[in-house]
Amino acid sequence: MPSIKSQLPPLFIGIDGGGSKCKAVVMTADHQILGTGIAGPGNPLHGFEQATNSIIDCASLALTDAGLSRLPLSSIHAGVGLAGVNLPAIFQQMSTWQHPFLSMQLATDLSIACLGAHEGADGAVIITGTGSCGFACVDGKEFIIGAHGFPHGDKGSGAWFGLQAAKQVLLSLDGLVANTLLTAQLMALLGCSTDTDLVEVIAHKPATFYAQFANLVLDAADQGDVIATAIVTEGADYIDHVAKRLWQQQPKRMSIIGGLSARITPWLAPQVQQQLSTPLNPPEVGAVFFAEQQLAALF
Amino acid sequence: MPSIKSQLPPLFIGIDGGGSKCKAVVMTADHQILGTGIAGPGNPLHGFEQATNSIIDCASLALTDAGLSRLPLSSIHAGVGLAGVNLPAIFQQMSTWQHPFLSMQLATDLSIACLGAHEGADGAVIITGTGSCGFACVDGKEFIIGAHGFPHGDKGSGAWFGLQAAKQVLLSLDGLVANTLLTAQLMALLGCSTDTDLVEVIAHKPATFYAQFANLVLDAADQGDVIATAIVTEGADYIDHVAKRLWQQQPKRMSIIGGLSARITPWLAPQVQQQLSTPLNPPEVGAVFFAEQQLAALF
Repeated sequence: MPSIKSQLPPLFIGIDGGGSKCKAVVMTADHQILGTGIAGPGNPLHGFEQATNSIIDCASLALTDAGLSRLPLSSIHAGVGLAGVNLPAIFQQMSTWQHPFLSMQLATDLSIACLGAHEGADGAVIITGTGSCGFACVDGKEFIIGAHGFPHGDKGSGAWFGLQAAKQVLLSLDGLVANTLLTAQLMALLGCSTDTDLVEVIAHKPATFYAQFANLVLDAADQGDVIATAIVTEGADYIDHVAKRLWQQQPKRMSIIGGLSARITPWLAPQVQQQLSTPLNPPEVGAVFFAEQQLAALF
Repeated sequence: MPSIKSQLPPLFIGIDGGGSKCKAVVMTADHQILGTGIAGPGNPLHGFEQATNSIIDCASLALTDAGLSRLPLSSIHAGVGLAGVNLPAIFQQMSTWQHPFLSMQLATDLSIACLGAHEGADGAVIITGTGSCGFACVDGKEFIIGAHGFPHGDKGSGAWFGLQAAKQVLLSLDGLVANTLLTAQLMALLGCSTDTDLVEVIAHKPATFYAQFANLVLDAADQGDVIATAIVTEGADYIDHVAKRLWQQQPKRMSIIGGLSARITPWLAPQVQQQLSTPLNPPEVGAVFFAEQQLAALF
């Protein structure tokens, strides 16, 4: 006698886990979205337990949102795209996780973002949110630029904008660069009145902390602040370089995605802007495409 | 009846605690050095317990070196100069430490470095080791530039050189800047063959880790490597600016000290180099001067 479970139409959960949050979507096999959920940080490089808890939390929230809270996770195939799993040791650790799903197909956050943006097809994406990177997938071959993390990489990302701002503000408080609007605004935002206050507030803070003041830098640049403009110009120049390297891989489409994409796009070179296409689906939907493609290849 | 202790000539222990090590010196009241000791990291911002353990360890080692291992620390006045205590919360925490000395006079690492370099008199110092900063003490008024920490500050320091190198090497591996000698040398030093290897090795590393490859950057710059030369030039320009700001305070003397000082001095502007004086004593001896001055003011 077949179980009740097997009589239900197949469902998929797609999960996108990044440095600041984990997003889940529940979808039918014909790509109807039934529900979504958001939970805490999902980058296993910054904590395996937190990442796996966030994955379960956002998946459960998405099921509840879909009105399916009584359906066990063990009845659903999951596609999980995570920041950090580009590192072999982290991929290995996540692969051995005793996950609660019927099956789990594990990919990088880049891979699912690209599949999402291009409706499951080949293409390229530039991601700029808390971190930054470029990714192309053409004829089964993946190409990655950046995705190196903070503070040594992720140029043009929110965390990079925030760190550059903090560095320049500290130099301005020492009288070594111009003291502009940016200094007053960052100090006000963080409730600081001296350089010592500022150092106490920013010491040992992660990328997500710095990314919080990226918009302040972009706002100051929009108002013509010279220090902020120099930071934004340097970040945008880097993204332009990433776009040019990605086009060399000859993708059919390219999109820019992530929390900072709308703010940084106007600063990119006109030619780079013109060649960008609107992303068709978010990364968590790309994670469902990934799970479907992997399972189709298995059976 | 006076105790045996009070019949001994007064001794002082001077301690210099920084991010990578803690150095102690035992001196007589007439400034003869009897012994020295070195222990682990002594910056309480990076760990109160480790810093206080290192202080006790290096003091005990200095007493043993002096042939005075049976003398209790409770019989000796200590001058203790520490990185991190420029932050009020850290100064407060260290002040309430139940230290083992007869008395403890607490100062910043900058203060004792300056006192040491100028034989207990006013002056200015530029410090470039794991971290970087400028400090002047003129007519009882202190002036600080930098000392902001890693990764947001400490330009021109060993950690800054190392981080800049790591960033440029990652960009070169992505084909976004020139792939020079520096890339091959850093990858060889760290046993890496891909950008992923490099990210795994450097992720979440502290300033002391990055400072380890500052000399590799300076070596590459000496060999004409364009990327390394750009890094060293930017760091040296910053130190030149710090020197100029310090001279505005009108100190009588200025010295450059710290683990990187000998390597970076040839890269400074000729005028800055010519105005530098040889430091007369190391910071730990300055810590003894500080303790003497504080005790003299008390009694």
